[in-house]
Amino acid sequence: MKRIKHGMIGGGLGAFIGDAHRRASRICNDYELVAGVFDADYEKSKEFAVLEGIDLDRTYPDVDVFIEGELKQPQQERTQAVSIVTPNNLHFSAAKKLLSNGFHVICEKPMTMTVAEAEELEDLVNKTGLTFCLTHTYTGYPLIREMRKLIQEDNIIGTIQRVDAQYYQGWVNPLMHGADTHLSVWRLNPEISGISSCMGDIGVHAFNLIEYTTGLKTQRVLADLNKVVPQAKLDLDGTVLLRFDQDCLGVVRSSQMATGEENNITIAVYGSKGSLKWEQENPNYLTMLFDDKPRQIYKPGNVYLSPFAAESHTMPCGHPEGIYEAIANLYKGAAKSIRGEKLNEGQFTNVVDGVRGMKFIEAVVKSSNENNIWIDI
Amino acid sequence: MKRIKHGMIGGGLGAFIGDAHRRASRICNDYELVAGVFDADYEKSKEFAVLEGIDLDRTYPDVDVFIEGELKQPQQERTQAVSIVTPNNLHFSAAKKLLSNGFHVICEKPMTMTVAEAEELEDLVNKTGLTFCLTHTYTGYPLIREMRKLIQEDNIIGTIQRVDAQYYQGWVNPLMHGADTHLSVWRLNPEISGISSCMGDIGVHAFNLIEYTTGLKTQRVLADLNKVVPQAKLDLDGTVLLRFDQDCLGVVRSSQMATGEENNITIAVYGSKGSLKWEQENPNYLTMLFDDKPRQIYKPGNVYLSPFAAESHTMPCGHPEGIYEAIANLYKGAAKSIRGEKLNEGQFTNVVDGVRGMKFIEAVVKSSNENNIWIDI
Amino acid sequence: MKRIKHGMIGGGLGAFIGDAHRRASRICNDYELVAGVFDADYEKSKEFAVLEGIDLDRTYPDVDVFIEGELKQPQQERTQAVSIVTPNNLHFSAAKKLLSNGFHVICEKPMTMTVAEAEELEDLVNKTGLTFCLTHTYTGYPLIREMRKLIQEDNIIGTIQRVDAQYYQGWVNPLMHGADTHLSVWRLNPEISGISSCMGDIGVHAFNLIEYTTGLKTQRVLADLNKVVPQAKLDLDGTVLLRFDQDCLGVVRSSQMATGEENNITIAVYGSKGSLKWEQENPNYLTMLFDDKPRQIYKPGNVYLSPFAAESHTMPCGHPEGIYEAIANLYKGAAKSIRGEKLNEGQFTNVVDGVRGMKFIEAVVKSSNENNIWIDI
Amino acid sequence: MKRIKHGMIGGGLGAFIGDAHRRASRICNDYELVAGVFDADYEKSKEFAVLEGIDLDRTYPDVDVFIEGELKQPQQERTQAVSIVTPNNLHFSAAKKLLSNGFHVICEKPMTMTVAEAEELEDLVNKTGLTFCLTHTYTGYPLIREMRKLIQEDNIIGTIQRVDAQYYQGWVNPLMHGADTHLSVWRLNPEISGISSCMGDIGVHAFNLIEYTTGLKTQRVLADLNKVVPQAKLDLDGTVLLRFDQDCLGVVRSSQMATGEENNITIAVYGSKGSLKWEQENPNYLTMLFDDKPRQIYKPGNVYLSPFAAESHTMPCGHPEGIYEAIANLYKGAAKSIRGEKLNEGQFTNVVDGVRGMKFIEAVVKSSNENNIWIDI
Repeated sequence: MKRIKHGMIGGGLGAFIGDAHRRASRICNDYELVAGVFDADYEKSKEFAVLEGIDLDRTYPDVDVFIEGELKQPQQERTQAVSIVTPNNLHFSAAKKLLSNGFHVICEKPMTMTVAEAEELEDLVNKTGLTFCLTHTYTGYPLIREMRKLIQEDNIIGTIQRVDAQYYQGWVNPLMHGADTHLSVWRLNPEISGISSCMGDIGVHAFNLIEYTTGLKTQRVLADLNKVVPQAKLDLDGTVLLRFDQDCLGVVRSSQMATGEENNITIAVYGSKGSLKWEQENPNYLTMLFDDKPRQIYKPGNVYLSPFAAESHTMPCGHPEGIYEAIANLYKGAAKSIRGEKLNEGQFTNVVDGVRGMKFIEAVVKSSNENNIWIDI
Repeated sequence: MKRIKHGMIGGGLGAFIGDAHRRASRICNDYELVAGVFDADYEKSKEFAVLEGIDLDRTYPDVDVFIEGELKQPQQERTQAVSIVTPNNLHFSAAKKLLSNGFHVICEKPMTMTVAEAEELEDLVNKTGLTFCLTHTYTGYPLIREMRKLIQEDNIIGTIQRVDAQYYQGWVNPLMHGADTHLSVWRLNPEISGISSCMGDIGVHAFNLIEYTTGLKTQRVLADLNKVVPQAKLDLDGTVLLRFDQDCLGVVRSSQMATGEENNITIAVYGSKGSLKWEQENPNYLTMLFDDKPRQIYKPGNVYLSPFAAESHTMPCGHPEGIYEAIANLYKGAAKSIRGEKLNEGQFTNVVDGVRGMKFIEAVVKSSNENNIWIDI
Repeated sequence: MKRIKHGMIGGGLGAFIGDAHRRASRICNDYELVAGVFDADYEKSKEFAVLEGIDLDRTYPDVDVFIEGELKQPQQERTQAVSIVTPNNLHFSAAKKLLSNGFHVICEKPMTMTVAEAEELEDLVNKTGLTFCLTHTYTGYPLIREMRKLIQEDNIIGTIQRVDAQYYQGWVNPLMHGADTHLSVWRLNPEISGISSCMGDIGVHAFNLIEYTTGLKTQRVLADLNKVVPQAKLDLDGTVLLRFDQDCLGVVRSSQMATGEENNITIAVYGSKGSLKWEQENPNYLTMLFDDKPRQIYKPGNVYLSPFAAESHTMPCGHPEGIYEAIANLYKGAAKSIRGEKLNEGQFTNVVDGVRGMKFIEAVVKSSNENNIWIDI
Repeated sequence: MKRIKHGMIGGGLGAFIGDAHRRASRICNDYELVAGVFDADYEKSKEFAVLEGIDLDRTYPDVDVFIEGELKQPQQERTQAVSIVTPNNLHFSAAKKLLSNGFHVICEKPMTMTVAEAEELEDLVNKTGLTFCLTHTYTGYPLIREMRKLIQEDNIIGTIQRVDAQYYQGWVNPLMHGADTHLSVWRLNPEISGISSCMGDIGVHAFNLIEYTTGLKTQRVLADLNKVVPQAKLDLDGTVLLRFDQDCLGVVRSSQMATGEENNITIAVYGSKGSLKWEQENPNYLTMLFDDKPRQIYKPGNVYLSPFAAESHTMPCGHPEGIYEAIANLYKGAAKSIRGEKLNEGQFTNVVDGVRGMKFIEAVVKSSNENNIWIDI
């Protein structure tokens, strides 16, 4: 097995999500980090490269130079796939340039700043046939994959009657109520983060989990967003009602001001024959409910799981795997795609999820701004 | 201590909620059941009275005769308080007659069929000064009482920033998907149950828990209700957005078609300094979250609880009490009121909660019928 | 239905367990408290009787006078069953006298101070044919009853391979480390409590749960007991190894010095085909484990439960019942026995359990005193 | 930062634990795998090396050749640290040779087959000053490290009064009751696995967690081991009583025949001022109990944790890390030691833990064979 030559845009010194991508790529062991633009500040980028053991000749000042430099590399040394782990406002241009020059892309969400940009990327991916992985991290958990399969392939819960997803965090609370340090947090700055904080950063994950697991398509949304405190520039809290292509109701509840909540994502899908519930902070438990039988708890690493969930957990049962392994599963999926190997259904979230996510974000902001009316997406 | 002479309207053979009220009244030991109209069918009512050991002379064919008969009893034998545990459509007339004739009332929810009726009862209670207890059962749990006190008296969580309450059940699901036995279930029949099933029967509990614990007043609601299946005559599922007299968002999520859910009521209140979370199916745990300290778990029977919560759990810590003890706590509170003893804040839910509940029910049905607009309550 | 005339020895003002018995007897509604010796101090006993509404003529100074007085009552008024809720050292003589005079007995555990006394009671029960209920409270929980049935009737877990029971409390810790208030706690005084505190008061419950649920007979024990602090007069902590009539190992772990533990009783039974686990502080969950299938969670009030467990929970599913309802189930069982109704297997713990318990207590104390050798029981 | 040149003995195709070590070493990113003896079968070893991208010239047929070959490498290319992930019977000779030739060692447990071998390794480590890390995996979890610190540095729970550790697995059950495939499982073969299966493979982890977290030294043990089924050659289940250098009792409960249990390790430490409880299958929760305050739940990634626990979790709070990250933390610690960086107390389990573990294993087997007497360790 030859490792895929891997580049990275962003993710230098002190970057949390870039580090997470690198750890994940090392866990799955399909990638070798060889080049990058690790920081907007070239000196810091090189400082990082030295620490990480990356060749300084392949540490570039910007994406254009990266592309130019890498295209000059001999083909077997050249970067094949590039992870984009910058702030949101830089995703689109980097992705567009990389795809246009033949690089596979692994991109953080939200994919772009607008739906228009998202659709442009979708066209580009379709045209080029390149692999584009959008890291909706939580779809990498084995039991989320099992949940999808139980619903969509096995039809084990029957007709879906209700969907309820939550994403509660509390990390913005001390920023808002403490000293004014939040101005420096880019996620709270609309110019960098986009038109939404809570829904754009985390609500969209809950939305994605709904569509990923159920296969339902959301037709329209009605949102009530809240900045909570006057000094906030973007929504930090909100509730979204969803209507689908089937007659059932959905709800996305999300907050970054839910004091003391850490990363409390949950999803519950209620069907006519059974229901499924999952919580991210205890990701190794999937609960199935029935009218007339004892509830069942699925756990990873067991013989009763389907192949896709089974291969998404590498330890024996009872040995908890976590968020890094979930991201590694997305990287593994992207690697399979890049190598042209056979993919599972739902192998990794991609540019289509990115377009859906941007449509969700734009629609919920619009709905909330227009006094909570239904907006099609 | 002399037991309060206790009557009952409804709750005869096979009635689940009447039996629950009787057990609760026996647990707290402040009542002695002496008279009643246990069934619309007088023969069945008498059959029940024999089994229960109630004097047949004080087993009456209807509420009017009950009142007439009891008023003739010598004062120290006469029924002092009457529990109304009939189907919803009979609450109002029974309550009105009883209050008008000097009887204290303990009434099941929803209190009436309309807001107008509810307000009429409120006036009557105010005018007569009689005790009126509305059995919003879950407010009898010790940790719900502690939650109220921590929020309203101790201000321990600061400014409330978000409220999220859920009430999910699945019991209607097999009725709807099985043989057509649901027609005989009175809760699903609008003539008996009222204008709403899901929100009227259970959503209103979630709404009440929000107002009871937080002290917030809901100003307006926007609801999306769903019958789920064509044969349903009333909503069986829905989501309600709430706005309060403070700038925070609330949500009530409720379903009777959440397959496999039993009686899954939860409430979470997020404040600027901390948060509180509670689940009815594990009622002896109250979780408090903070930005910067380990989360704390409160349990009943411990020295750190406030007096009201402490007296609401009679066993030593670690000995679980349940739903019957919660109802018993409401009965105990009503008994204290009837006897003119000093009451705790929030001692029992009452006619004011009943009016609020009916306003909630009417508003959510209206909002849903009018394409999900905001309705003041 | 006529209520059984009920008397009580002990359980007066301030008594926790007497109050619990009375609440339980009222919940099941098969008893009417009419007479008693509520306190060793006759004045306090009468004071209690007044509060409770008991006839002072039937409030007696001691057991002998109680018997004499009640035997003079007309048969249909006479006390039929008597609950003994005194400190341990008074159980035997009261039970012996009552049984000898034709009264059914409901007795707290440990049943006696010695095995010899226990066996004398057993003979007396056999000879008289009277009902004798020993309140091993936890056997009243519906899911413990289901566990027994799944193991013994359905053989659902196959050959038992291991049994592990725990009973951890922390309430003695502050007594021992605080001011010397513990001298007044009778449970810590060998003259009143007997030869063991931790094992006699709570370890024996864990032992009983093992034999009740599995049907295994313990053949011998090896115990290591600990007083933990020098000022203790009795064991406050210990571990017991068990060997059974089958080749599997058992263990009972128990402590009254497990700081912060409330009433943490657990039992796990591991079989060749599956396993069952239960925890008293969350009594409405029974977990079944398998090699090759998702684990299952049983909950009360559901259609899949067997009749005995079903009738032991009277609310719909999801409405938690607790410790009082568990005791009420034992009282209900004793009432059925007194009335000659058909009993379920394991309907209530009785004098046989009492003898087993005393044998356990004597054996573990002997084993610990003799340097942790095996002692037959 | 230069990665440490890393070799591996064992862990080739199909090896679960070797793969786990490699993933862990990649997560912490301090190692670069450059050489090894991956399989006893040289052809398979080379096949693995090709897949893994290891230089075939540095893929050796046995440990002697490995040492010879690596010593010939230029110093900056030469393997510095070697992981031993073979079956148990090969640990000692490999470790001895490697240490004797100047290689740092990371070794799976149980460290050796006998105490004598263990002590020989201890001498060698002391003499050479080389780093020796014994992968008692569970000590790598952040909250186990916090637990150690809270007990040993902060003395937050006071005098320890009881310790209770459990390690239950069920994986051997289907082997024993199914077809006779267990003969090929080396862990069940005494010639390869050593004198104990259950206690040697997993009970020793529970023992280690006790000594690691509490700092107590076990003075003697009394064990009751069970083969459960006649065809077993080694213990598959057992209970061990422990006595310490302080007057408190301990217990280790362990089984490989606990049907349906996955990897259920728990530890509870009860002190005079508080208690701490942790479960491996939910490793991101540490519960602290008190007499008079609400229980507290510690979670990783929060500001209230001590530096050692903080640096042992790299994601923000609420993002679960798991078993691979725990092992990575041990690898990280060994890397710090190899580089001469400042170490935390308890940075990684080492040769001293290995000697303790072997003494435990020998003592429990002896105790069980000699009719459950106390054996000093």
